[in-house]
Amino acid sequence: MIVILKKDYNEDQLGNLKDWLKSMGLDIHLSAGANHTVLGLVGDTTVVDADLIRALSIVEDVKLVQEPYKKANRKFHPEDSVINVGNVKVGGGNVQVIAGPCSIESEEQLCGIAQSVKESGATVLRGGAFKPRTSPYAFQGLRAKGMEILLTAKKLTGLPIVTEVMDVSQLDLFADVDLIQVGARNMQNFELLKELGRMKKPILLKRGLSSTIQELLMSAEYIMSEGNEDVILCERGIRTFETATRNTLDLSAVPLLKEHTHLPIVIDPSHATGYARLVPPMALAAIAAGADGLMVEVHNEPSRALSDGVQSLTPADFDTLMAQVNAIRPYAYKYS
Amino acid sequence: MIVILKKDYNEDQLGNLKDWLKSMGLDIHLSAGANHTVLGLVGDTTVVDADLIRALSIVEDVKLVQEPYKKANRKFHPEDSVINVGNVKVGGGNVQVIAGPCSIESEEQLCGIAQSVKESGATVLRGGAFKPRTSPYAFQGLRAKGMEILLTAKKLTGLPIVTEVMDVSQLDLFADVDLIQVGARNMQNFELLKELGRMKKPILLKRGLSSTIQELLMSAEYIMSEGNEDVILCERGIRTFETATRNTLDLSAVPLLKEHTHLPIVIDPSHATGYARLVPPMALAAIAAGADGLMVEVHNEPSRALSDGVQSLTPADFDTLMAQVNAIRPYAYKYS
Amino acid sequence: MIVILKKDYNEDQLGNLKDWLKSMGLDIHLSAGANHTVLGLVGDTTVVDADLIRALSIVEDVKLVQEPYKKANRKFHPEDSVINVGNVKVGGGNVQVIAGPCSIESEEQLCGIAQSVKESGATVLRGGAFKPRTSPYAFQGLRAKGMEILLTAKKLTGLPIVTEVMDVSQLDLFADVDLIQVGARNMQNFELLKELGRMKKPILLKRGLSSTIQELLMSAEYIMSEGNEDVILCERGIRTFETATRNTLDLSAVPLLKEHTHLPIVIDPSHATGYARLVPPMALAAIAAGADGLMVEVHNEPSRALSDGVQSLTPADFDTLMAQVNAIRPYAYKYS
Amino acid sequence: MIVILKKDYNEDQLGNLKDWLKSMGLDIHLSAGANHTVLGLVGDTTVVDADLIRALSIVEDVKLVQEPYKKANRKFHPEDSVINVGNVKVGGGNVQVIAGPCSIESEEQLCGIAQSVKESGATVLRGGAFKPRTSPYAFQGLRAKGMEILLTAKKLTGLPIVTEVMDVSQLDLFADVDLIQVGARNMQNFELLKELGRMKKPILLKRGLSSTIQELLMSAEYIMSEGNEDVILCERGIRTFETATRNTLDLSAVPLLKEHTHLPIVIDPSHATGYARLVPPMALAAIAAGADGLMVEVHNEPSRALSDGVQSLTPADFDTLMAQVNAIRPYAYKYS
Repeated sequence: MIVILKKDYNEDQLGNLKDWLKSMGLDIHLSAGANHTVLGLVGDTTVVDADLIRALSIVEDVKLVQEPYKKANRKFHPEDSVINVGNVKVGGGNVQVIAGPCSIESEEQLCGIAQSVKESGATVLRGGAFKPRTSPYAFQGLRAKGMEILLTAKKLTGLPIVTEVMDVSQLDLFADVDLIQVGARNMQNFELLKELGRMKKPILLKRGLSSTIQELLMSAEYIMSEGNEDVILCERGIRTFETATRNTLDLSAVPLLKEHTHLPIVIDPSHATGYARLVPPMALAAIAAGADGLMVEVHNEPSRALSDGVQSLTPADFDTLMAQVNAIRPYAYKYS
Repeated sequence: MIVILKKDYNEDQLGNLKDWLKSMGLDIHLSAGANHTVLGLVGDTTVVDADLIRALSIVEDVKLVQEPYKKANRKFHPEDSVINVGNVKVGGGNVQVIAGPCSIESEEQLCGIAQSVKESGATVLRGGAFKPRTSPYAFQGLRAKGMEILLTAKKLTGLPIVTEVMDVSQLDLFADVDLIQVGARNMQNFELLKELGRMKKPILLKRGLSSTIQELLMSAEYIMSEGNEDVILCERGIRTFETATRNTLDLSAVPLLKEHTHLPIVIDPSHATGYARLVPPMALAAIAAGADGLMVEVHNEPSRALSDGVQSLTPADFDTLMAQVNAIRPYAYKYS
Repeated sequence: MIVILKKDYNEDQLGNLKDWLKSMGLDIHLSAGANHTVLGLVGDTTVVDADLIRALSIVEDVKLVQEPYKKANRKFHPEDSVINVGNVKVGGGNVQVIAGPCSIESEEQLCGIAQSVKESGATVLRGGAFKPRTSPYAFQGLRAKGMEILLTAKKLTGLPIVTEVMDVSQLDLFADVDLIQVGARNMQNFELLKELGRMKKPILLKRGLSSTIQELLMSAEYIMSEGNEDVILCERGIRTFETATRNTLDLSAVPLLKEHTHLPIVIDPSHATGYARLVPPMALAAIAAGADGLMVEVHNEPSRALSDGVQSLTPADFDTLMAQVNAIRPYAYKYS
Repeated sequence: MIVILKKDYNEDQLGNLKDWLKSMGLDIHLSAGANHTVLGLVGDTTVVDADLIRALSIVEDVKLVQEPYKKANRKFHPEDSVINVGNVKVGGGNVQVIAGPCSIESEEQLCGIAQSVKESGATVLRGGAFKPRTSPYAFQGLRAKGMEILLTAKKLTGLPIVTEVMDVSQLDLFADVDLIQVGARNMQNFELLKELGRMKKPILLKRGLSSTIQELLMSAEYIMSEGNEDVILCERGIRTFETATRNTLDLSAVPLLKEHTHLPIVIDPSHATGYARLVPPMALAAIAAGADGLMVEVHNEPSRALSDGVQSLTPADFDTLMAQVNAIRPYAYKYS
């Protein structure tokens, strides 16, 4: 951490600051220049609140040298983490495809899709029971009833299941869920993250719409600092000025995260692009970039016109995609 | 709502769609062109899930003509709402200044600041007991102890108080709070919004970092649709590419919101800019633009170097600002 | 094009508007609803200035149904365009790799790199003679001298060359250049685009930092509408809130552009990410997504420590990358 | 400037780097820590190309302490610059209002508006002869004919005039223009900036759609470094995710620029918001924030329905606004 002092700093205040920094076990290197005096702080600066120092009247700015996360940091944990989701492994060379509908609508719908995606090669089943919707008037999910249906589909297919939690109060229903999803809008719901950190289940943490890679890792750190180190990260598009896609898929998150963390990274091309026809090329791109998995929306053959999700693949499209994914996998970028 | 059909749509599917739309009480106007056929839907389209229609295989796109919010919509409620916060009115020409520290640190600190800002003319006291922090290692607030201190300061000064809730489970502690704040990171914590909608207390709803004005209004609608119509909106800066300020204050939110909603709008120049020296000019700008209030961070005279918040005004600075605010108020833009 | 009228529109003004629209050969379909009256315009609306209509006092908003570009539009030109760059074809299944240094520094440097990238499989040589730099004090390129060196390297290797033009006045020096690059900062330098539209050479048009896909196509249309239809598009990262990468590579531009235009699309992972170590995974991702080519910065073996570009691959790294690119190519997404 | 070395840096390379930095007259302070070694560079680092250092194989990152601009920097020029535009002064407490139509359409139109805005109190006349338009099919301005009309209006009213240049080749027509405007899309047209730097006329430099405050100042530096120090800066909205306004007016640019530069700052609320009804509150906000001027689009009374620009005020609206601006001016924030 580097502290840049204001030109006219007061020596007494500097003395106080130095004493306080030393009390945290840090070494201080002072460089006095014509225009600026700079303090270089050496030691474990993870524990230092940069905002607090930035707030001092004698400080002009603080620049971070070291990342402010520890448990999620590859520097302190060089080996890839491998996370067990039911009987399936994610990370460390294990690439998995999570598939299923955005919302659980009925047992028939979910079980049909579940069997179909399993046959195509998906290894984890997704399905939303609690649905975060921008409008209070939009369908909010089947909730408890949806959870029951999801467990039925798990039993039927043997696939481990992932579904989203929106509030701490819902967690009682998640006992038999294999992977608990934190949605983009809750990435900085810190009370929820802390609660999940006290659980013994893997967490799928989606990147917030306007969250930086570092903020994503800080949210993972919230979970991990409470004891639960089984976190899978998910890039699902960020909000930019471009409106041709629902969000902008930031695929460079894959190599960046591979560098900074040992946690696995999964890509969700369905939410990122918002259009089914963009999903297959982006799914292949994600695999090529070395992602540890995909999360793809699949919806069953429309029995009536109203059931074909704008970003969902049909089971047939998904089957084609799985063949393409399997074909390209050996040629994906490798990080080690 | 306008539905643009794909070129090669199927007549049977179109028939199904039209029947379904009619069943929701909508009139349908069809325009058939060389390249596109367009359906104009007339009636109360608030109840229609545009995403569902967009997902139909025969639909190319859906364009909204009417806003998807109702209770927050000025069209259906032309008069300004006036919200009572304790004994203080916000909106409809009543401009209020909310002031206080970001975090409650001690009784001495908060009570000292509270008396000082009251003397300068602030009419609502703010202070954070539960603090959302990016890092799990940063100070998380005094929590229950902080709530006690806040109530002491309320009793001492008679100022109504506002403080942030981060989770439904904390609401038991908010019985004597006059205005409950939803922070930017929780603007789309829909379970929390619904719970607040069942309370009988005014809510200060902060705009999310990357939320559109329409999404802010949809989140207000979540609260209002459950019965609580006392919502005050707060613009506190959005996330953009510019890093010279902590966020980018979107002051055009004031006239936009005045046009689209009857709810009052308060501006927080402290979080928006992130630097104390930018707060006074932006506070004056907010008043000039016709905002219904300000929310300003004020921290007491630093007893030691470490207590001067980078975005907090000193009580003396705040006193100067209040004089400037009072001087400019008669010349502010008026919306009616 | 759909025109939404204000609630209280004047019938005479509507009459004038309808006459004027009819005079442009458009058919008008009017849908009158309780809250809004909507005009559907049918015919060739490319010629209509939507801003002009939006400006009318009786108009609330205008929504586009048809894209405002014609020559670049795949609807009017369904077959992929294949662009000849010297003896090399780009598009329609022909994937090319453009490689070379960001700046031309010396004949030795450029010719060395040129021979090396040719051996590794690059088919077009890049090198900057005119360099757009944010600071007037930074190196501005060798300019005319750089152009000479570039032509020497072309003669030596037989590779076609691409280099950036920054101003119309420089075009005299481009007679023997095979592909003229328009940089991101000049994507909306319309006078330059028009001039390039009157030339008989292919143009490599880079997407602006904050330009939408549609604006990129409108800039291509500027060139094409003057007669030069040989335009290659290049995605090189957009500006977002994320600062961990120099820009955010928007790889969904590949399928989006494949859908909307017949022009080839090349990806520049070097500028997009800003870091050499992110270039190989993003290059493989671009190929997997079905891009028509790559543009990669390569710099020669550093003779002294100061010459190793932060986003440049070494020739050895590039050689490895080419092998990976060639291996993955057969498994890339195919659009037809 | 602070240089952070990679953990495993080579001592010889470090020696070379230190020698090179010393040769530029810089002092070097080295802090060696457990995880990182940091060099603090003291002296005039404006001349150092940070990208070049960042590119070194032994360097992990470079952090700037000093701003990379000099002539535009308030540190080296503490007094406000006052720029003469014809007989009118901008900056240093002189607030001016620039008004006129977006495009010059006819002599009658422009002269009518010119006389009207002069009577209302505008002190500089604007009008576009060369119009940058996204579409090649949209109206491109009257060009040379428009320049003639503008000079007629200048003669008639005595108002100094400002108009936009789009290309170096147009500058011959600007001999009698009092203030040359560089549009947002040309803010980084460096060849144009250098040419303008060799002129003896004040320049109105508009901030690019996605340009940072620092990049705006670097573009001012391009002009100033060639000898022309008469630059007026203009904030006209930046591109963000919000689509309710055409752009997002970044009004915090006023206090930020006041801090970092001595150049005057003018606000354009018409382009920033894109809607006439948002212009007056944002104009008052700009004045309250301490801007040195406004640039407002005004269009004459519509003779036919088609001439009322969506973001233009009518002369009557402008007259009302001028009264409000004059009333609020004494209460604006003052920077010194």
